[in-house]
Amino acid sequence: MPELEYSDLGLLDPLSHDTRARELTGDKAWLRAMADVELALSRALIATELAPDWMSAVCDELATGVWLDDATAQAIAAGGRSGGNPVIPLVKRMSSAAEAVRPGASDFIHVGATSQDILDSAAMVIAGEVLAEILVRLRSLAWELSALADAHRGSVMAGRTLGQQASPTTFGFVAAGWLDAVLTVYERAAALRATLPAQLGGAVGNLAVLTEAAASDRVVESVVVRFARGLGLAVPRISWHTNRLVVAELAALLAQITGVVGTIALDVTVLSRTEIGEVTERLGVGEGGSSAMPHKRNPVTAVLIVSAARQTPGLLATVHGSLLSEDQRPAGAWHAEWQPLRDLEGHALAATTAAASLAGRLDVDLERMAANLEVTDGLIYSERVTAILTDALGKSAAFAMVEKASAESVTTRRPLRVVLSGLLVAHGSHEDLRARVWSACEPGGSSDQSAAAIDKVLARHLRVISPSSDDAPADSPALHDETLHDEGSTAP
Amino acid sequence: MPELEYSDLGLLDPLSHDTRARELTGDKAWLRAMADVELALSRALIATELAPDWMSAVCDELATGVWLDDATAQAIAAGGRSGGNPVIPLVKRMSSAAEAVRPGASDFIHVGATSQDILDSAAMVIAGEVLAEILVRLRSLAWELSALADAHRGSVMAGRTLGQQASPTTFGFVAAGWLDAVLTVYERAAALRATLPAQLGGAVGNLAVLTEAAASDRVVESVVVRFARGLGLAVPRISWHTNRLVVAELAALLAQITGVVGTIALDVTVLSRTEIGEVTERLGVGEGGSSAMPHKRNPVTAVLIVSAARQTPGLLATVHGSLLSEDQRPAGAWHAEWQPLRDLEGHALAATTAAASLAGRLDVDLERMAANLEVTDGLIYSERVTAILTDALGKSAAFAMVEKASAESVTTRRPLRVVLSGLLVAHGSHEDLRARVWSACEPGGSSDQSAAAIDKVLARHLRVISPSSDDAPADSPALHDETLHDEGSTAP
Amino acid sequence: MPELEYSDLGLLDPLSHDTRARELTGDKAWLRAMADVELALSRALIATELAPDWMSAVCDELATGVWLDDATAQAIAAGGRSGGNPVIPLVKRMSSAAEAVRPGASDFIHVGATSQDILDSAAMVIAGEVLAEILVRLRSLAWELSALADAHRGSVMAGRTLGQQASPTTFGFVAAGWLDAVLTVYERAAALRATLPAQLGGAVGNLAVLTEAAASDRVVESVVVRFARGLGLAVPRISWHTNRLVVAELAALLAQITGVVGTIALDVTVLSRTEIGEVTERLGVGEGGSSAMPHKRNPVTAVLIVSAARQTPGLLATVHGSLLSEDQRPAGAWHAEWQPLRDLEGHALAATTAAASLAGRLDVDLERMAANLEVTDGLIYSERVTAILTDALGKSAAFAMVEKASAESVTTRRPLRVVLSGLLVAHGSHEDLRARVWSACEPGGSSDQSAAAIDKVLARHLRVISPSSDDAPADSPALHDETLHDEGSTAP
Amino acid sequence: MPELEYSDLGLLDPLSHDTRARELTGDKAWLRAMADVELALSRALIATELAPDWMSAVCDELATGVWLDDATAQAIAAGGRSGGNPVIPLVKRMSSAAEAVRPGASDFIHVGATSQDILDSAAMVIAGEVLAEILVRLRSLAWELSALADAHRGSVMAGRTLGQQASPTTFGFVAAGWLDAVLTVYERAAALRATLPAQLGGAVGNLAVLTEAAASDRVVESVVVRFARGLGLAVPRISWHTNRLVVAELAALLAQITGVVGTIALDVTVLSRTEIGEVTERLGVGEGGSSAMPHKRNPVTAVLIVSAARQTPGLLATVHGSLLSEDQRPAGAWHAEWQPLRDLEGHALAATTAAASLAGRLDVDLERMAANLEVTDGLIYSERVTAILTDALGKSAAFAMVEKASAESVTTRRPLRVVLSGLLVAHGSHEDLRARVWSACEPGGSSDQSAAAIDKVLARHLRVISPSSDDAPADSPALHDETLHDEGSTAP
Repeated sequence: MPELEYSDLGLLDPLSHDTRARELTGDKAWLRAMADVELALSRALIATELAPDWMSAVCDELATGVWLDDATAQAIAAGGRSGGNPVIPLVKRMSSAAEAVRPGASDFIHVGATSQDILDSAAMVIAGEVLAEILVRLRSLAWELSALADAHRGSVMAGRTLGQQASPTTFGFVAAGWLDAVLTVYERAAALRATLPAQLGGAVGNLAVLTEAAASDRVVESVVVRFARGLGLAVPRISWHTNRLVVAELAALLAQITGVVGTIALDVTVLSRTEIGEVTERLGVGEGGSSAMPHKRNPVTAVLIVSAARQTPGLLATVHGSLLSEDQRPAGAWHAEWQPLRDLEGHALAATTAAASLAGRLDVDLERMAANLEVTDGLIYSERVTAILTDALGKSAAFAMVEKASAESVTTRRPLRVVLSGLLVAHGSHEDLRARVWSACEPGGSSDQSAAAIDKVLARHLRVISPSSDDAPADSPALHDETLHDEGSTAP
Repeated sequence: MPELEYSDLGLLDPLSHDTRARELTGDKAWLRAMADVELALSRALIATELAPDWMSAVCDELATGVWLDDATAQAIAAGGRSGGNPVIPLVKRMSSAAEAVRPGASDFIHVGATSQDILDSAAMVIAGEVLAEILVRLRSLAWELSALADAHRGSVMAGRTLGQQASPTTFGFVAAGWLDAVLTVYERAAALRATLPAQLGGAVGNLAVLTEAAASDRVVESVVVRFARGLGLAVPRISWHTNRLVVAELAALLAQITGVVGTIALDVTVLSRTEIGEVTERLGVGEGGSSAMPHKRNPVTAVLIVSAARQTPGLLATVHGSLLSEDQRPAGAWHAEWQPLRDLEGHALAATTAAASLAGRLDVDLERMAANLEVTDGLIYSERVTAILTDALGKSAAFAMVEKASAESVTTRRPLRVVLSGLLVAHGSHEDLRARVWSACEPGGSSDQSAAAIDKVLARHLRVISPSSDDAPADSPALHDETLHDEGSTAP
Repeated sequence: MPELEYSDLGLLDPLSHDTRARELTGDKAWLRAMADVELALSRALIATELAPDWMSAVCDELATGVWLDDATAQAIAAGGRSGGNPVIPLVKRMSSAAEAVRPGASDFIHVGATSQDILDSAAMVIAGEVLAEILVRLRSLAWELSALADAHRGSVMAGRTLGQQASPTTFGFVAAGWLDAVLTVYERAAALRATLPAQLGGAVGNLAVLTEAAASDRVVESVVVRFARGLGLAVPRISWHTNRLVVAELAALLAQITGVVGTIALDVTVLSRTEIGEVTERLGVGEGGSSAMPHKRNPVTAVLIVSAARQTPGLLATVHGSLLSEDQRPAGAWHAEWQPLRDLEGHALAATTAAASLAGRLDVDLERMAANLEVTDGLIYSERVTAILTDALGKSAAFAMVEKASAESVTTRRPLRVVLSGLLVAHGSHEDLRARVWSACEPGGSSDQSAAAIDKVLARHLRVISPSSDDAPADSPALHDETLHDEGSTAP
Repeated sequence: MPELEYSDLGLLDPLSHDTRARELTGDKAWLRAMADVELALSRALIATELAPDWMSAVCDELATGVWLDDATAQAIAAGGRSGGNPVIPLVKRMSSAAEAVRPGASDFIHVGATSQDILDSAAMVIAGEVLAEILVRLRSLAWELSALADAHRGSVMAGRTLGQQASPTTFGFVAAGWLDAVLTVYERAAALRATLPAQLGGAVGNLAVLTEAAASDRVVESVVVRFARGLGLAVPRISWHTNRLVVAELAALLAQITGVVGTIALDVTVLSRTEIGEVTERLGVGEGGSSAMPHKRNPVTAVLIVSAARQTPGLLATVHGSLLSEDQRPAGAWHAEWQPLRDLEGHALAATTAAASLAGRLDVDLERMAANLEVTDGLIYSERVTAILTDALGKSAAFAMVEKASAESVTTRRPLRVVLSGLLVAHGSHEDLRARVWSACEPGGSSDQSAAAIDKVLARHLRVISPSSDDAPADSPALHDETLHDEGSTAP
């Protein structure tokens, strides 16, 4: 019986609650996936006449999962210690259940397979389900972000670099940048999901047992194809027992997804700082509180997403370490993938779910944005003012004049445009120029490429995620990749 | 009610079974530790008259843990989502339980504390228990290794570098090298365990609330000292909310412990290779089997320990990343420590437990060791033969002659000593020298410092771990460390 | 003047020698790339009439690199300290050089750009060159591996799992597995290389300065397109100053490439172990030696490749950590990418170069392979014998009988087939069955899918890398991905 | 001749300039250290009469380093490729130089040693020098921080948690927290430096060659002791060729040092944000500028330190991965330590140097601190106000009342104390209570334990770093550590 002592209730992983993270990656999900993999193999044998027709009924019975009750699940988990993986006890229990349905049935279970075939294929089944759920969440997130990008095209705010106010930007442009990254990982996830391969090689990968059993190579291939298709997985060209690229790529993608939504969350933690207060997380009753401070309204979703994103690079490193897999099955590297991969899936899934929620609960404070633009007495307009002065003075002289004016503005606490006007007068420049400089030092006083860039990203959004396909992932066309660029169309 | 779906049965962590890893680091352990921390705080308030005497009975009642049933545990875990950590819902539930015992009692729970005080202190309580268990296991391991080192002083085997046979060594010397590393981490673990500090600072670390409540600074200090001592922890000098050195050091130690026992296991996987077969893991019935190959006897314990050791560096990196903790409590870095630290503890504890078992089940095959020494036709003696020839010929000439003889031996498949004898005759060297060379090309034909080194390590063993103290960890004297605490001076 | 004290001669990175690793990723390469980026920007301005025609001659003069002598290079490197990156001093020096060519020319350098635009674009230029070189090396490696896979279809050797002999395989099949992984990273590298984007956004990414300078949005776009194309890079849709996916993906790919060739090298270190000796690295004169042992022939190339592959996961983690980039340019995350990315490039490039060399210098010892197959007295044939017995006895009974026979064979040191014959006689089985079992216990006594799998991988090789295109990378068709699977064609 | 192409000028590591990072860890430093190690061995042989007296003069001549010119240095670096490490070509060159001084002298170089002995010992020599330099920098840093802690005891500022203003603290308290962490790593660095061990074991660690050469075990031990002492290193108890704890501990400490100073820098990047502006980095002329924005004053030192601290966890993971070292010398793990350890040393050294400079250039803006405390209309005082109300209302009721008042204050934009006064009047509470609440809502309106904590940390400072010993590191007494060595007992 499962004892709570040993259970993971999600106590140290608050982000996972109200998400499907643990449901889709928990031990029960793994047990079911491994059982499904064994059944897919048995069914492939039936279809190729390597197992009798009556085995179908046995498979149907086993597929109910009645035999895999909680006590059995625990016994299987504990049984993994002696063989080093959970497949050996699973096969034993499943075989007993099969024999109970019909004597002799166990002869058609796990035929030609090795433990790694079952566990790796189950890992891909689970990865497929995790990616499907992530795609759903990324779609929601993308819609929220595209709404923000569109609505806030004109919401001028301070752009910040190295923590310092730099030049004005708009919140719409910021949101478009977030969206563009989300669309990229969306495409990647859809593409990878469509190519996750099954694993079937037998002890050392060469399908020796199935070859012995089958009449011809064609039959063996047919088993592999039916097995893979039965699981919704791609057909492997050759066993990948020690070619772990697919696992490494999956892990990298999961870390990238978590990182992309983590960056959005990180920006929210910055923009919601008490002294900035431009974009805050709308909290429900009882949310964001503190055990010590009654007034606290913490950006708790953003913080937890950031926390998830900080945990993924280390896990990614572990999985990439297992690329170094010696022999036909390595003595430790393969086993070391299991938990980190699960954790990466959990983080990515929980983080995308939470990010979609967060993006729908952002309060954008236009007043604070405007007020913060005033903090520097106009210094934030220095880049754009320099651009204007460059026409008249040349770039170097313009840069030098603004640099000088900036320093003077700081010292004297007079607005930059006031100081600059003085310098321009002294320089004998034309009144028009002074007027241009003056009006450039206002939030809406200049134009940039934000609008065009936002439009491009919004167009990409509609291309990547069709508005009508809200429930069906747009992942079928697979690798139509335009990730970070549009080639050509913009050329003159 | 806990649903098995979301439970961690240890399916993907076979090594944890039959160990206390999940028991000591699971969610239930954390809940109990956090409750204990709250009670220690309440009792410190009572002792300093900041809470009424009758509160003692309430604490006793709460200490039974009856209020913390499974449903409550789950609710607390789920409740952590809205505040970002599990302490807020814990305090709420605990306060209700206290009120049920005696109205008004909740006023004396969590006084002056912030969530991080409770969670960090609980983390240290758990770390202390984990280290205590690890020390027990390391003691067992050390005894096994010291027996091996002593028994196999004369068991000559091939020393190997870069995978190639290099020069003879003894298995006793190899075991002494393992033991020396184990003793080092034993000392480190004992020392660190004795200095794990409590955390108590309030919202921003300066104990403002307790100061408001107490009559004097002395009383506040007394609360902190009693709180820490009540938990068996060191008294902190100053809050370490954003000084995460203690967590980083703990994580590094856990990774080092796992790495040290992982190296022993790694050597076992190498030495038990079919073609080497010198040291093998004795398996029980049903252990080490394969789902595909009836003959397989896999070194399953060794493999799983190696797997654990491969997972720790990435987790360590995550914890060290959290040294970068901004403000008075960071927006994500702190939260990112929880799971990796738990995983590091689980790996270290399971790996040491398994390693102690493994070391007691090693079959040493002296015949294979002797046979393997013959594989190179004497090339393995080249270092020692060179040493002998150096007397007569000088080092460079000796090296050159043995290099030449080695190449000839490989080409002609004649033993090195035969080839060398020919060269020495041609060189006109004395018969005595040839005789020395001849006898050096035998397993016991030369002496080295193995025996002395083994003795030194065995002596260290007895110094570090007294044979009489098999049940009491030798961690009490340890290092008088003041790093994060000042003991005593502040006690009333 | 460059002082040798501070120079990296490659002392601690032996693998880099005789490769282009440091040439393509060294400081001088970076300086040239950054200068090229600035020139591409100036030329884009000229083409769009934002700079005068005479600026072309200035660009041509600057492109000679005469101004960027060693002293200047050092000054630029040192000058990076005060602004936090090397672009600021580069622009200053380059502007002076431009002014020396023609007064006023500096006004058309770095127009509209921010430091990150230059450094990121230069990083992509370098990445493109590094990937091109890696593709060349992977092509060589693939040819070597495909020759090995084809030549050794019938070279039966022991397949090994968890360090233990498992079932027979062939060296051709092993080589085909290596090749398949190499082809996958080849395709990935070619695809990624074709999509590396330029960076151009100005201070906060919205191209505000160029917009100010240009007559229309179309002109701004034209600048970006010409800039990117001038560098052979893709046109960015929107600035990616804080969307670091492209860097993360590049880093992941480099780690995967190094891991894939690292696995080949790791297998060589195992197979060349003195006691195994099946596949060894052919060494040149003076190679693989030891400072202590005259006879030593270390697999030095393989060891150094493994070493490189062990260093990449940690670097990968750092780069993925920088996905968390706050604001419009983060306060540390961006800077933290530079060195790890360079190191990843260096490792990948040196490792692939060395692996191509290694694969061409493998000595395959068929005698040792055959001899090693005898080590287990036939136990290695247990999987295949079980498959044969399954026909007659059913799978479970067959497994049990072979398990029993295996144990008896170990105890009595009699060959498995002898023991099994006895059991089969006792079981009353037909003579034909005993004969099949007997002949299955020989290296060539059974068939498997190795040949078919090898053919599939060789066919993929010809598809991915055309034999005629030895000098032109087959990277143009980009994302025609079939990485780990062939969909459909094999279905019945 | 060294070509600049391959040189590292520090272009991508701006922080290293104006520090001794590359000087102490560069290739030339390594070459010198390795040569010193060889000389220490030769001298130990002379002292124990295993080498002739005239060899002293040869050593003196070689110690001048004349033979190790730039061309030789490059040749050695390149020569490391064929043997896999730089020691083999070094010994060859050094032997030639010795022979040039006196024929036969090369016979007394590298006697009994293997490459790893030399490289590991050199690594410890360099580590000792790096730690010594780091200790100097940490001392400077500690003095700056202690001055800040003392001077700013009363500089009230907003404490912030999760990015939100939480409760008041003082800048002195913050600085004391930084200082405490610095003192801890200072103690650790001093202790570790005092215990860095030499390495001397010969081919497989058992000193077989020296044993052959020497008359007795005592003489061999004497060689080891003299060798270690000659290098200022501890005497190893047993070879640590594959016990890499000392390297792992060193790496962990370096990452911790960088993390500790990185946290200070991270806080500076936050506190110097334009909208906060409480603590800023004082910049020199031309420092902190931007290539795009004339007004920019970036906290460039802080940013670069943060960047260094972000790079260390991944490097740490790599080094810890090498704890898994098989055989008597592993096939890759050892080689994989070299570069990451060097990079960790470089980061730690450059970061501490820069941090000491940064701490001496912090502008503390008391006006901004005071102004920021006003931003929340008094909400920042909620914790302390709750403490006051707890006396009268009990903790729960007090918390609830302040929570309600906080919400009302936000909605109505009235100060918290005004809202609370209204509630207290309604509640019928005594005027004194209202007055206490009122005055608590002022920066200096309450006391806490800051002063006491600051005093404790300042006292620790004086204990750990004696003010008189500004030039002599306080590392001599330290921990009497015997971990890897037995000092003295073995000396003649």
